[in-house]
Amino acid sequence: MDKTTTFQPGLNGVIAAETKLSYLDVEAEEIVIRGYDLIELAEKRQYIDLIQLLLKGRLPDGAEQQELEETLKLEAPLSDSLVQLLAKLPKDTHPMDALRTGISALAGYDKNLGERKNLEQTILRLLAKIPVITAGSYHLLQEKSILEPDPDLSYSANFLYMLTGRVPDEQEASIFDQSLMVYSEHEMPNSTFTARVIASTNSDLYGALTGAVASLKGNLHGGANEAVMHMLLEGRSVEGFRQLLLEKLARKEKVMGFGHRVYMRKMDPRASLMKEALRKLAAVKNREDLLECCEAGEELMKEEKGLYPNLDYYAAPVYYLLGIPIDLYTPIFFSARTLGICAHVAEQYTDNKLFRPRVHYTGPRGLHP
Amino acid sequence: MDKTTTFQPGLNGVIAAETKLSYLDVEAEEIVIRGYDLIELAEKRQYIDLIQLLLKGRLPDGAEQQELEETLKLEAPLSDSLVQLLAKLPKDTHPMDALRTGISALAGYDKNLGERKNLEQTILRLLAKIPVITAGSYHLLQEKSILEPDPDLSYSANFLYMLTGRVPDEQEASIFDQSLMVYSEHEMPNSTFTARVIASTNSDLYGALTGAVASLKGNLHGGANEAVMHMLLEGRSVEGFRQLLLEKLARKEKVMGFGHRVYMRKMDPRASLMKEALRKLAAVKNREDLLECCEAGEELMKEEKGLYPNLDYYAAPVYYLLGIPIDLYTPIFFSARTLGICAHVAEQYTDNKLFRPRVHYTGPRGLHP
Repeated sequence: MDKTTTFQPGLNGVIAAETKLSYLDVEAEEIVIRGYDLIELAEKRQYIDLIQLLLKGRLPDGAEQQELEETLKLEAPLSDSLVQLLAKLPKDTHPMDALRTGISALAGYDKNLGERKNLEQTILRLLAKIPVITAGSYHLLQEKSILEPDPDLSYSANFLYMLTGRVPDEQEASIFDQSLMVYSEHEMPNSTFTARVIASTNSDLYGALTGAVASLKGNLHGGANEAVMHMLLEGRSVEGFRQLLLEKLARKEKVMGFGHRVYMRKMDPRASLMKEALRKLAAVKNREDLLECCEAGEELMKEEKGLYPNLDYYAAPVYYLLGIPIDLYTPIFFSARTLGICAHVAEQYTDNKLFRPRVHYTGPRGLHP
Repeated sequence: MDKTTTFQPGLNGVIAAETKLSYLDVEAEEIVIRGYDLIELAEKRQYIDLIQLLLKGRLPDGAEQQELEETLKLEAPLSDSLVQLLAKLPKDTHPMDALRTGISALAGYDKNLGERKNLEQTILRLLAKIPVITAGSYHLLQEKSILEPDPDLSYSANFLYMLTGRVPDEQEASIFDQSLMVYSEHEMPNSTFTARVIASTNSDLYGALTGAVASLKGNLHGGANEAVMHMLLEGRSVEGFRQLLLEKLARKEKVMGFGHRVYMRKMDPRASLMKEALRKLAAVKNREDLLECCEAGEELMKEEKGLYPNLDYYAAPVYYLLGIPIDLYTPIFFSARTLGICAHVAEQYTDNKLFRPRVHYTGPRGLHP
């Protein structure tokens, strides 16, 4: 065995993989996706383009775009028996746990489970079905019936329709698509790392994604966008929200939506993009008060703690103005990130080495039963 | 951000956690569990004792043992609605995927989901129910009815009974209990690491275990015991098995059941214990031929490759002679390991730092959409 290294809690600063997929260049303030700047992609392209970019390394032309949309539409519907299984979940089930159970159960319907030559097809099937499971399992928990995907809508417009039950207008669909893009891939956060660790045992994609849902559920990871919205609603006004944040800081509580292990003391560029989206939606929906609250919180946290907003801070009010139930923010984050995670799992398979680190043992020795 | 380190594929030799739970001391050839030698524990104690040892750091006295058995019996039965959900799984579902879905769905029944003060109670509930889900989901996939746990049997005897449908004799129950002990905890294999990575986001125990099942399913990890048994059955005789192994070596295929990332060129001490168990069972069941096959394979692999058997190599024929269906070997491994994984998750929570490593980016830069 190789010599062991010193212990870095949380593997902070440890290189755990080589990747051609993405990189957070903190110095250049750029989120690199296959060589492109994520923010530029999110301004000029669509989520569907990122699918091909991340899976094949190049952006699609018009014909490829159309073919991809068609494939995703064909693969989207869930089987009746999976819907019945999801309907059996206890009604108190957390939406992320319902999503996790749905993805886990879906493995039983794959006749070529784990066969590498079908990997791309499996990824597209999961990209098609996970938004349907996300929205559908939530409605079932609410004792409503599941909404069938609408094949006349684009991938993102259909996803938003299934979440809210209302066909979105063009601006809403475009902003939602942009939010999916900025959530789609982000180097090696805990959930992506979890998926690569699982895949390194030669386990299949369903398993890797199941573990990743579990990871993203944690409030130090994906759960933050929901926590932000609850804070904003609790604060109610600029003054109320400022007061709430000051009280949290006085109690030394962690304030969700600020700071990021990697960005630290710079603004998350994805947050700036969602802030712009919020500005547009707030104007149309006459909710400038919500934008003002967010800006006041941003200002306060910079002054008091030197901390900047991360993506979750501005994605939360955007989802709120799009009419999405708060409990769905983290499942949506996962649905968007499914793309990046699948690309990482595919990459892990191509040059795999089992993840098997060591420990530093600090317990007793030499005892006898 | 801290300075990043050089890339170690698979985090080979990287210290990923401090732990008081266990340590593989390769030099001393000892598997240390809370200061005790696992092999000595497995010879002198029972699985139920390891539960308290791993969770509380000390072995139980007689009264504590009895209380623990009682708690586990009370918590064992599954709710009707969970059984109905498991019955909805497609009949081709892989037993590990059924187990994963069952654990994932179980979260919805926990009224105190994720509350840390209930952690020990949750761990005991999972230790009680996971054997029932393991055996029950398998029988449901086989379109048989689920066997209720028998409260007159000990924890391990009941587990073996639910697996085979037959009440085991004392020797069988004792050997099965010993196999659960040697599978219970083993430092930081991929599945335990997966669980700690997930738990580090503050995600709950159900999620951590769901990810760990996915990890253990991979054939580079838990899947090996089943592969060993299929090889032994395919070989049929000493000569046939030797031939099979030689052919695999000639094709440069990986032979399951041999070698271990940590032990490398020493015999896994757990394998020696299971070899003794196999010797006893083979004598009683008049299947010395199976032991001879295993020994011939052991000899051949040492001569040809300098590789020694690991636990899976001798656990597989032991489970076979106990009458357990081969598809259940990996789910049993997981059920036994649930203990170690839960102890690691509890430890992760006590001094947590989010796992968030970095990558080495090897793709292009400076592209524009």
